[in-house]
Amino acid sequence: MGSKNSIEVCFTPAIYSLHHNPEAIVVVVDILRATSAICTAFMNGVKHIIPVATKKEAKEYKNRGYMVAAERDGLVLDFADFGNSPYNFTRNKVENKDIVYSTTNGTNAIHLASSCYRVVIGSYLNISSLTQWLVDENRDVVILCAGWKNRFSLEDSLFAGALSQKLIDSGLYETICDSVHCALDIWKVAKNDLNNYILKAAQKSRLAKNGLDDVIDYCHTFDLTNVIPIMEGNLLKPYLVESNNDLNNITCQNHKL
Amino acid sequence: MGSKNSIEVCFTPAIYSLHHNPEAIVVVVDILRATSAICTAFMNGVKHIIPVATKKEAKEYKNRGYMVAAERDGLVLDFADFGNSPYNFTRNKVENKDIVYSTTNGTNAIHLASSCYRVVIGSYLNISSLTQWLVDENRDVVILCAGWKNRFSLEDSLFAGALSQKLIDSGLYETICDSVHCALDIWKVAKNDLNNYILKAAQKSRLAKNGLDDVIDYCHTFDLTNVIPIMEGNLLKPYLVESNNDLNNITCQNHKL
Repeated sequence: MGSKNSIEVCFTPAIYSLHHNPEAIVVVVDILRATSAICTAFMNGVKHIIPVATKKEAKEYKNRGYMVAAERDGLVLDFADFGNSPYNFTRNKVENKDIVYSTTNGTNAIHLASSCYRVVIGSYLNISSLTQWLVDENRDVVILCAGWKNRFSLEDSLFAGALSQKLIDSGLYETICDSVHCALDIWKVAKNDLNNYILKAAQKSRLAKNGLDDVIDYCHTFDLTNVIPIMEGNLLKPYLVESNNDLNNITCQNHKL
Repeated sequence: MGSKNSIEVCFTPAIYSLHHNPEAIVVVVDILRATSAICTAFMNGVKHIIPVATKKEAKEYKNRGYMVAAERDGLVLDFADFGNSPYNFTRNKVENKDIVYSTTNGTNAIHLASSCYRVVIGSYLNISSLTQWLVDENRDVVILCAGWKNRFSLEDSLFAGALSQKLIDSGLYETICDSVHCALDIWKVAKNDLNNYILKAAQKSRLAKNGLDDVIDYCHTFDLTNVIPIMEGNLLKPYLVESNNDLNNITCQNHKL
């Protein structure tokens, strides 16, 4: 390896310890739906998100008066204000609020990565701003796929490929990680027909079973926001990335909340 | 899912428990080099192979007079007769012998899978006979990639794609497993230029560091043998699959020992 920054992709939280790099920025990815929902909340002006791993913690925050978004296996927990769909996080509900958030896979991945240099939340909704910020930070990147209960997930791994490709295209990154090569290749297969490709993901069927698969196209929409959620202490806070030409060159699809 | 058999791919032994199916046949894959070496040994007439997970066990067998093949991180253990290169397992060395075998990743994966219906050893060297036998057995299949110290490995996952494609082409298998879809897609990218594709695998660099990468083309050669190694008790035994037309239709490359 030369003097470029490295990229690694971790396909499941079960093996995160093998990819852990204390000097790296970890991008947490749970496309369907946690990290797409978190990016949506910040796009719509949420002040902070407090990710918590357990239902017990979420309940305690609720008892203290916080607004709580919490789900398990796609279903809203009974004490929660709402669940995991990005469509919940509308401006009139979330603007200037603090929200506690707990999900099946995504919030666990955020906590797992917390001992790295910095944790940031990735989704298609902020992919170009995220890339620009990572390039400006100029350090190693680990993309942590939240997966499904420690299984490999196609939609998260595919996003890892999309982001890896953008980082490599910047000229500042290289990789010797087999998972990155794999992610790049599935992205190559999928990218020209993304919305059809993703229909074979197991998570599509899980969501459809509960009538929740109407978010899939939205969660695969590029660059709806310039805000990236960054972890500071136990809070996710918004960071506005100044737009540049690269961002404007991306063809945005027309899904809006 | 309909009435077809299922295929799952497990990308790393670290999450095997999530893919465990007591009714399935598990195909253990460690293309560079353990399962290619084991298939070579049976092609050349070895009687039994006794896979052992630990160095201690391998040493004990050695002390009892067994021939031992054992390596860690690509290097031969000092008490062993030879290491993990398929080139070691020539007919004059192995014919009619019992060999004890212990490797960094492959033998561990074999033991991990032992509570399934049956464990079989897969490599490109026997891929068509293996497919034919699996189709005849007509049950669920889990392809277990040995990986590298619980990391994802490109060469094992690619083989998982090649084997999954053959099983799906038989018409008897289907999948809802995201790892299978991923493996199929990287196989699609790689298959027309396999020997160049695989050069980006991290294991290529690890082998090259020790001057051991001369086996890579050999380990990606199709159908040198009709013998498949099947686990019975604590022994791998050979099973000869009668050749059929499908096997003959495969274009064999010309790598021979």
